[in-house]
Amino acid sequence: MSTHVHIVGTGLIGTSLGIALSHNGFRVSLADPSPTAVRLARDLQAGEVADDETSAPDVVVVAAPPDVTARVVVDVLDRWPDAVVTDVASVKESVLRVVLDSGADASRYVGSHPMAGRERSGAAAARADLFDGRAWVIVPHEGSTDAAVRRVREVALAVGSAVRVMPAHEHDEAVAAVSHVPQLAASIVAACLRELPESAVGLAGQGLRDVTRIAASDPRLWTQILAGNAPAVRDVLRLVRDQVDDVVGALDALVDADGDGSLGTLSRVLEAGNLGHARIPGKHGAAPAAYEVVSVVVPDEAGALARLLTDVGEAGINLEDLHLEHGLGQAVGVAEISVVPASVEPLRAELARLGWRVHD
Amino acid sequence: MSTHVHIVGTGLIGTSLGIALSHNGFRVSLADPSPTAVRLARDLQAGEVADDETSAPDVVVVAAPPDVTARVVVDVLDRWPDAVVTDVASVKESVLRVVLDSGADASRYVGSHPMAGRERSGAAAARADLFDGRAWVIVPHEGSTDAAVRRVREVALAVGSAVRVMPAHEHDEAVAAVSHVPQLAASIVAACLRELPESAVGLAGQGLRDVTRIAASDPRLWTQILAGNAPAVRDVLRLVRDQVDDVVGALDALVDADGDGSLGTLSRVLEAGNLGHARIPGKHGAAPAAYEVVSVVVPDEAGALARLLTDVGEAGINLEDLHLEHGLGQAVGVAEISVVPASVEPLRAELARLGWRVHD
Repeated sequence: MSTHVHIVGTGLIGTSLGIALSHNGFRVSLADPSPTAVRLARDLQAGEVADDETSAPDVVVVAAPPDVTARVVVDVLDRWPDAVVTDVASVKESVLRVVLDSGADASRYVGSHPMAGRERSGAAAARADLFDGRAWVIVPHEGSTDAAVRRVREVALAVGSAVRVMPAHEHDEAVAAVSHVPQLAASIVAACLRELPESAVGLAGQGLRDVTRIAASDPRLWTQILAGNAPAVRDVLRLVRDQVDDVVGALDALVDADGDGSLGTLSRVLEAGNLGHARIPGKHGAAPAAYEVVSVVVPDEAGALARLLTDVGEAGINLEDLHLEHGLGQAVGVAEISVVPASVEPLRAELARLGWRVHD
Repeated sequence: MSTHVHIVGTGLIGTSLGIALSHNGFRVSLADPSPTAVRLARDLQAGEVADDETSAPDVVVVAAPPDVTARVVVDVLDRWPDAVVTDVASVKESVLRVVLDSGADASRYVGSHPMAGRERSGAAAARADLFDGRAWVIVPHEGSTDAAVRRVREVALAVGSAVRVMPAHEHDEAVAAVSHVPQLAASIVAACLRELPESAVGLAGQGLRDVTRIAASDPRLWTQILAGNAPAVRDVLRLVRDQVDDVVGALDALVDADGDGSLGTLSRVLEAGNLGHARIPGKHGAAPAAYEVVSVVVPDEAGALARLLTDVGEAGINLEDLHLEHGLGQAVGVAEISVVPASVEPLRAELARLGWRVHD
C-alpha cells in the first residue's frame, strides 16, 4: 500500500511537494486554513482535500509559515499518535525547542528543510520539480527514532532531493551564511535604488539583476525567518559589517587623504569574494573540482562541435565539463573543455595536430 | 568607404566590440601590449592586427584597463590628430579630468561606457552580442564637438546598444548604485563563505548563486574601478552600512533583550528591498534577447554528448549556447542547450523522439 503523506499548508512548498509526491505514487492529503488555497492546490493535482473521513496519515509534513510551524507540529503529533511528523521551516533549532518543551511525543518528530524556494510564493508558483536535485536537510535530535528519520528521508528522496543529515544548530548556522545574510544583502542593495533618478536605474545590467533577484521575496515570510535565526544571522552579519567598514574606510582615505593602503584593502575584499565564491558547489550538487580549461575555436557550421567532441573522445580524454561561448551572429565560437590537469597538454597537442585552433 | 575603428586593448570588451563591428561592415584594427592577446582577438575575427602600415583611423576606442585608460586616450589624441577618441572605462569623471588637464585636443574626446560585461575577462570570453540591447552611456563635455559625439554614437548603435547621454558625474553616481556597490555586496557575501564547513556550503541554493555570481569578477580590474569612483561609491556604501547597522541592532535586541520593534526594522528593510527591486527595468530592451534552455540528461559515456549535438544539428536547430553540468561521480550529466524560444518545442519533441530524456 502506498505511503500516505498529509501536508499542512498549501503554499509554494506544500503544494510543490504534494504535486511531486502524487506524481511518484504517494497518497497525498492536504489541509490549509484557507479553503481557497487548499482547493487551488488540489486543482494543481497536489492531492486530495482532507476531511473528517480521511484516514490517519503515515507522515505529516508541516509546511506552514515559520512562526506557526512549531505549534502546528505539536498539534499534529497529538492528533495522530502513530504518524511521523516533519516540518519544512527554514530555521530548525527554535522549532525543535518548542516541540521538546511541549510534552508531545517528540520521538516521532524529525525536522527538515528542503533547500528549495522561489522569489514567488503561493500555490500558483508551485512546481513539481522544485526539489529535484536540491539539498533536503534532515535534522534528527537525541530523542528521534531511526524509523522516523527513515520516513522523512523516504519523502525527500521521492521528490529527487539530495538528503543531508546534520544537527539543528549546525543547519541554522549554515543557512545564516548561505541563505539568510544573502537575502539581507540583496534587500539592502535593492533598497539603495529607491531614491535614484530614473536615468540611473535605467543603467541596470545583469549583475544588478542577479544580486537583487531575491530582494523581491516576501517580507512577511523573511521577517519570520530572520527573527527565528537571529543569533546565527547576527554573527554572519557582523562579518559583513566589518568588511563594509573596511571598504568605507579605504574609500574615505582615497577621497580625503593620500589613500595609502586603500587599494590593498579593496583588493583583499574582492579576492576574498573570489575565494568564497569558488567554494559554492555547481548547480547539480557537484563539488567544484580543480579542472583546467582548454579553449578551442569552433567554426559556426553544422556538426563542428560534434566533430570536436568526437576528436576529444577518440584522443581517450575524459571531458569533465564543457561550456560553449557562442555569440549571436558570430562566425566562430569558443568551446571551453574542462579536463583533469594531466590531460591538458595531451589534449592541446592532439587537437592542434588535427587542425583545431587551441588557445589558453 | 567604411569607417575605420582602431581598438586599443583586446580584452573582453575590446575583442567583443571588434567582432561586432567587423560583422557590421566596419574596418577594425587592433592593438594590445600583449601579442598573444591581440592574435587571439584576430583569430576570433575581431579585426586585423595593426602595424606601422595601418592607416589613420576615423575613431579610436580605448578599451584598456581603467588605470591606464586616461594616459592611452591622451597618447592616441596626440598620435592621430584627426581621429575621434572614446574609451570604455567604467568610471568617467576621473578620465575626463586627466584628458582636460593634459593639453591634448579634448574636443575630439568623448568618453563612453558600454554597460556590458561578464564575470569573466579576456578575449576568450568575447561575444559578438555583448552589447546587444545594453545601455551604452555617452558622456559629452563642454569642449567636445557634436561631430565627435555623433561618431561615438555611430559605433554604439552599430553594435545594437541603446545610447544614453549624460554628464560624467551623473554617470559615476548612477553606476556606484547600480554596479559598483552591488559588486562589493556580492564579494562581501561570498567572502563570508570562506571559513564555512564543507557541509554548510553544500547547502548553497540558487539564491546564493545569483547574489554572488559577480563575486567571481577580476579583483585587479575592480580595485581600479572602485578606486576610480571612490566618492560616489562611498556615498552609496554608507547607506548600506546604515541599514546593516539597523539590522544588526534589531537582531541584537531579539537575542539579548525583548526585541521590541525588531520585527518592524527587519520588515522595513525587506520592504525597502521590494520597492528598490521593482524599479529595475525588465530585461526587455535592456539585456540580450533571452534564449530559452532545454535540459537534456546525458549519460556519462564516451561519445554521448557528441551524439546529442549531432542530433540537435540534424534537427536543423541552431544551438546558441551550451552548458554541461556534470556532477563529480554522477552517472549522468545535464546538457543545457540554449535556443531561440521558437525552437524550444520542436527541439524537445525531436530529442524525446530520439530517446533523450528532456527536462524543463
